[in-house]
This record gives sequence, C-alpha cells and structure tokens, in this order.
Amino acid sequence: MKYYSFLLLLLLSGFSFSQKSSGSDSTIIRQFFDEALVRGKSHEDLRSLCKGIGARLSGSAQAQMAVEWGKRKMESYGFDKIYLQPIMVPHWERGNKEVAWYQSGSGDAIPVDILALGGSIGTNGTLKAEVIEFKSLDELKKATKASVQGKIVFLNQPMNAANIVTFQAYGGCYGIRGQGAVESAKLGAVGVVIRSLALPDDHFPHTGSMYYEDGVSKIPAGALSTISSNELSKALSKGKVNLILEMDCRDFPDEPSFNVMCEITGKEKPNEIITIGGHLDSWDAGEGAHDDGAGIVHCLEALRILKETGVQPKHTIRVVFFMNEENGNKGGISYAEWAKKENQKQIAAVESDRGGFSPEGFECDGAESYIQLMKGFSTVLAPYGLHHFEAGYGGVDISPLKKSYEGIPLFGFVPDSQRYFDFHHAASDIFESVNKRELELGCASMAAFVYLLDKSL
Amino acid sequence: MKYYSFLLLLLLSGFSFSQKSSGSDSTIIRQFFDEALVRGKSHEDLRSLCKGIGARLSGSAQAQMAVEWGKRKMESYGFDKIYLQPIMVPHWERGNKEVAWYQSGSGDAIPVDILALGGSIGTNGTLKAEVIEFKSLDELKKATKASVQGKIVFLNQPMNAANIVTFQAYGGCYGIRGQGAVESAKLGAVGVVIRSLALPDDHFPHTGSMYYEDGVSKIPAGALSTISSNELSKALSKGKVNLILEMDCRDFPDEPSFNVMCEITGKEKPNEIITIGGHLDSWDAGEGAHDDGAGIVHCLEALRILKETGVQPKHTIRVVFFMNEENGNKGGISYAEWAKKENQKQIAAVESDRGGFSPEGFECDGAESYIQLMKGFSTVLAPYGLHHFEAGYGGVDISPLKKSYEGIPLFGFVPDSQRYFDFHHAASDIFESVNKRELELGCASMAAFVYLLDKSL
Repeated sequence: MKYYSFLLLLLLSGFSFSQKSSGSDSTIIRQFFDEALVRGKSHEDLRSLCKGIGARLSGSAQAQMAVEWGKRKMESYGFDKIYLQPIMVPHWERGNKEVAWYQSGSGDAIPVDILALGGSIGTNGTLKAEVIEFKSLDELKKATKASVQGKIVFLNQPMNAANIVTFQAYGGCYGIRGQGAVESAKLGAVGVVIRSLALPDDHFPHTGSMYYEDGVSKIPAGALSTISSNELSKALSKGKVNLILEMDCRDFPDEPSFNVMCEITGKEKPNEIITIGGHLDSWDAGEGAHDDGAGIVHCLEALRILKETGVQPKHTIRVVFFMNEENGNKGGISYAEWAKKENQKQIAAVESDRGGFSPEGFECDGAESYIQLMKGFSTVLAPYGLHHFEAGYGGVDISPLKKSYEGIPLFGFVPDSQRYFDFHHAASDIFESVNKRELELGCASMAAFVYLLDKSL
Repeated sequence: MKYYSFLLLLLLSGFSFSQKSSGSDSTIIRQFFDEALVRGKSHEDLRSLCKGIGARLSGSAQAQMAVEWGKRKMESYGFDKIYLQPIMVPHWERGNKEVAWYQSGSGDAIPVDILALGGSIGTNGTLKAEVIEFKSLDELKKATKASVQGKIVFLNQPMNAANIVTFQAYGGCYGIRGQGAVESAKLGAVGVVIRSLALPDDHFPHTGSMYYEDGVSKIPAGALSTISSNELSKALSKGKVNLILEMDCRDFPDEPSFNVMCEITGKEKPNEIITIGGHLDSWDAGEGAHDDGAGIVHCLEALRILKETGVQPKHTIRVVFFMNEENGNKGGISYAEWAKKENQKQIAAVESDRGGFSPEGFECDGAESYIQLMKGFSTVLAPYGLHHFEAGYGGVDISPLKKSYEGIPLFGFVPDSQRYFDFHHAASDIFESVNKRELELGCASMAAFVYLLDKSL
C-alpha cells in the first residue's frame, strides 16, 4: 500500500478510532495511551526481564533473580509501598536437555524434538520401548492392558485449528498433557510422549505441567514437536517403531520464594484493594516473554502510567508479581490466604496472562452486575480497539481470591489469541516474539480498565 | 498460562466467540472458516509466491513470473473463467544496492542503512555534500534557499506512535517521501534522504514511491533506517556532517504486463460483477508478503472457499490480481477503463491491501445505505472477531472504478494495523512475517463478506 490516496483514506475513514476528548475519562485515557506509546517503559522492562534473566522456573536461581528484578523495578518507579510475601514453591529441574530417537525395524534411529513435561521423572538412563499411538485420551482409556503393557504411549491429538479462540483448542487437548502419564501407567506403559499443545507445524516442543496420581506408577512424560509427531505417526503407519528416550529431570525439596508487590495507596478508601497481576515465574524453555513477562509488564506499566499521569485512585491499587503459576500456583494460593488472614478488604482483581498481543478487551468472572459494569466501559475504550467485554475467566493467579472473598469479581485481560500457541511454553517464547506496540497497547488498556474500575466501585 | 482451570475458562467464557449455527448464513460462514483453517491453501500459496518468486516490482522478470504464477494458481482451482488483461507499466530498477556513509568533520565515515526511494534517479557516481536536517516538510518549506543550496536535505519526521491506527501515522509522514525531493530541489538541494516511514527502531530502510515535478530539478532520494536516522541526527546535533551517497537506480521504457483475473459466474445475474482484489506487484525489497501477497491470497482463497463449499453466487464474483499498484496504479486505472469500455456492469468492489494480520472488519467508501448494509453483517461475523464496520477507504487498485461507475460502493478489508509498518516496503516483509492463522482468518473473512454482499445486492 502506498500513496497519495492516504489523505483520502484519512478523510473518508471517519476517524473511527480517532482521539476524542469529550469528557474527562476520555481525556485521561488518551493520556494513558500517549504515555504508553510515546514515553513507555514496557518494552525495555520486558527486555531486561527476558534478556537479563530469561527463563525463571520456580525454585531456580533465575526465579530468585526475577524477584529481585521485580523489587528493583518497583522501587525505581517510586510507588507508595513495595513488599515481598514469602512463600514456598516446588523445585523441579530438567537437568541435561532431553534426547530421543525413533527407530523403525532395523533402520537408522531418527532424532525427534523433545522436552520433558514439567514434573516428570527422568528415565534413569536410556529407555527403549515400542510405541503405540492414540489420537486422544479417550481412545487411550478404551485400550486393553495387553496392547499397552511395556510400551511408550504416544498421544497424538492435534489442537483443533477450527476453534477461533485458540484457548478453546488448547482446552480440548489439555487432558493428554495433564493426565496422559496416569492413564498410560494404569495400562502398564513405561513412558508417554504427547504431541505438543501447539498450532503451527514446527520444530518446537512445548512443555507444561503434568500430574501423577497416588497409587499409579510414575512414568517419564515428554512432549514432541508437531513436526516430530507427524513424522513418528507416519513411521507408525508403516509398522512397528521403537522410541529411545533419555530424560534427566528430577524433583528437589521445596524452596523459599516470594510474591513481589507494590501499591499506590487509595485516596478515599485506602483499605480497599484492587489487585492486578500476572506471574513472574515461567517454564524453563524460552524467556517467558508472552507467558507471562508481558502480563508482569502490563501491570507494572499500568501502575507507572497511573502515577505518571497523576491519577489518584479511590482504592488502593496493588500490583502483584505472582510466583509459581506454572507448576503449583503457590503464589496465588498463598496470596489469597495471606490477604484473608490479614483482614484485607479485596474488592476486585484483574489478571493478564494471555500474552502480549493486540488488546481486544476484558472478561469478567463475577456477578451479572459486574459484567454490566464492565460493558459500560466499552464506549470510552472503543477508540483503542477494545471491543470484547464478556463473561469469562479471570486468571489462575487471582482465582484463589474467590475462596477467600465470596463474590469478588475477577477480570481477565483479553488480547488477540491467534499467535499465543506458537510460543506458549516453548523455546520460541522470547523477547523478540513480543511486538512493542502490541505490548504498549496492552499496558495502556490495563491502566484504562483499572482506572475505570476504581472509579466505578 | 497452564492448567486445569481451562475447563473453567471454557465454562465461564460463555463461548462468546463460539460456533453458532442458527440460520443458514451462520452455518455457511462457519464452513468457510473451517475450510480456511483446517483445509486451507492460503499459507502454501503465499509461500510459493514469496519464496518461489519473491519481490516483484512492475516491469521486472519476477513480476512477469508472478503473472504466470497467478494464472497457473487460478487454473489449478478450476474457476469458471481465467484471463489476462494486457497493460503497460513503468520499469524502474535499483541496480546495485545503494550505499551511504555520514562523516563528521575529519572523523571516520560511518555507514548508514539506505534504500533509494522508488522512481529516484541515481547519483551518477558518488555524491558528497553537507547534510541539513528538517523535522517535517513544512519546516523545510520555510527554509531559505541560502541555507539549503548545495546540501543534502535530511527529512527526519518520525511517525506518530500515539496514533492508534498506524495508517494515520503513515499518512502524517507521507509528504516527506512523496514531495521531499521536489521541495528540497526547489531550494537548491543536491539530494534528499528521509527517515523511513516505519514505527520500530531498527536497521530496515523502507522504500516507496516519490515524485518529481516538471520544471523542478530531479535529485536523488533515499530512505534511511530509523536507527540510521537517529544516529545521523545525533551527529548533526554536534556539528557539521557530510553524507556520501551512491545510488545506481534508473528508469527504463514502459513494459507490457497484465492484470490477472478469474471468476465464478453468477447464477442469477451473471452480467453483474463484484470485483475483489489485491495487487500482485510489490516493492523490490523483501518478498511483498504483507504488501500485498497476503491480499492476493485473501482473494484467491476466498474464491476457492466459495467454490469448495458449493456456494453459487447470484452475481459474478471476479478476483483481480492488479499489477503496478506500488508505482503508478496502471493496473487499477486500466481495469476500470476496460470494464467501462466493455460495458461491464460493476456493482461493488472489495480490496485487501493492509496486510495479513488478524481481521478486524471492513470499511466502506460509498453511500450511507451501503455502510448500513455492511453494518448489518456484523452480527453473523462477530463470532469470528470481526467488529469494525465503518465508513472508510476501499483501496488504491479499486479506486479508479469510482470514475467509471458513479456511486459504486468500494469496500476495504481491515486487519489489525499494529505491525504493518514493521514490514511495509522493507526487506523484512517476507513470508515468515505472516502468521498462518491470521492469514487464514483473513481469507475466510473475505469469503464471508463477499458471500453476504452478493446475497444483499
């Protein structure tokens, strides 16, 4: 696209996304977006988290570095209060990166792209066994013990590309990752590999939590890239295939860690708290850029924007960098328990944990009155492309607040979901995968939403 | 983001984007999206255009290869009619890639990232002159001849990051590229370099059309990357700086070329035509992936989807791969003239030329009745994230139809604009910069829009 005709475009477009300044909310929110897009700190903050520290799985040295990074960042912005909440978190390590090959008959062994699932045991040397493929967890459950005994189960269920919101496709495959090991072991399998919960055909395996069950043997569990899954499936269609697998991963005792918090104190109701947050930990592949470095930065930058533009919120706005969302949610659980124990009045919470993509809107897990309240924000937010205000989900980190605070409304930031499962839990989730403007628009959207919520409650 | 809680998300989300099938339009449109996302050809078609041919500036051998590629693709899908419209197009070549350095006083010459602007003359050897910087075309126009005479003008106007729709920021800077050479030459400058019309700070210069004016000296014109622009500006803030420039580009006589077309014949009104299209030519940097390989593929795939799902349109749906949008619009102009001359009844046109990003909706350049008609499509398209239906711009290629057909409504496909100016007219606009799902959603959106438009007219 070139041209002269842009002048025409500008004239004709009716400036449907243009900057209106009728009414003070519009004016203030326009300032938020200017601050984020023109003088924003979010992209450089994300860079320092991703490039300075990188992956930061709970219990790791990097996770502790991220705690210190978070505290320093908060201090540098001069918020009213900054503090750490001590918690205990699981400590699992991958060790040496996994290796695996498949072998058809007496042919050459062919390497596959593999990552152990988080929480898996290791193979204790090399594991070699015949592979049996299933297209879903339900198909596996219907198999006989005789057919599975002694084999490595291969759960090759692709995410459904037809789902418009990719999280729905993810939800549809979640079972193979979470329950694959237990269901395979029940039938006597010696290991399980799954097709990565990812949409593109590429060479990145995607890790994520898996679970064992008391009374069921623990077997090693890994994820293959989608391309390796396709290759393995093709080899299996031609005859018997062995998988050779070496995984070094293991559990260690729980480690001390922290949730990291900062606040702007409320002017009218300082004892009433709106919590906004994301999670500071990440999986150990990539740099946790979209998951959830972006969410961390959305919330930090939103608070900085409120401060910088001189907004004095009615209620206390608290940013929480939760620890350990990925493999235990100890941060979220401990936060809700602590808040309750301290008799804090938590009145609402907002989470960002769906990536750093172009903002679409917010969802509400709460009473109809809160959903309607949120829908009321849509007019003033429409100039910024925000159009999705629906009942939905808040987020993992803030969800335990529901137990401590009956009826508390939880809100989730909703960016475009199309690219999320290109990066989620994979080595591809690096700083460069986050677009600067998309990130900045998310920060300003979070600031605007929190501003309107604070005014309305 | 991990988790068990996805089940909850699915339950809570109210399936606001879910697949409804109430009414036959909804059912058919759901089939379009299934076809695009599950059995789509668009991503591989774009790959073959970008990787098999690459850049395809009008008049080049690659542009001719793209014509043949288009015809073969159309034939492979078995549409009712396929034909080429002969046209004449400009032929400008970059020659050896440009090189440039800046030099402060007697210091080392420091290389800058540069691309000649399309249509520029060469330097005929090496051009060395002092640089004078202006922050806008207006600032340049106010300068004295004495201050500019014999120098190279540096137009360093950044795109306004605060604009939410990036095309607005582009429009705001368009003048420095289009008119920079003429305004500089009027004041006696010997050359002009502009800050690339791009939002990120990176090393990619972005080319694009520039114009000369009869009676004003032609001077060489190039674009620097944003990083080189920042560096040059910094050097200038410290004192006198020379720019050393070598550009090999030149004009050749016009070349024969073609618009490439295919149709599904209308069942009820075969003589009434809805034209949909994008442009087959591209600038000579990168692979013309977003600009406008994506648009080409949107339209081709939309027609394939209509055919594959058995839709029999009322009117004839014609896809046009226009040639020469980038530096002359000879394809668009010739098409409108030819259609008029042949007494074709053109009733509407739709263009895709804003990149292959997540679809947001459509704009209409036409009477209020057409805008309202389009807004009426919003309910059935909402499940696919389409929410923007406003008065606006159609596209460069289809715009000449307005002259031939008074009152014809023109529609423009609107994807998310945030990343467009990372790639536009630069070496970064390659196949890998287009996300498969985003492209596919655009194709299905185009099919759905054309289906609804055809039914409604």
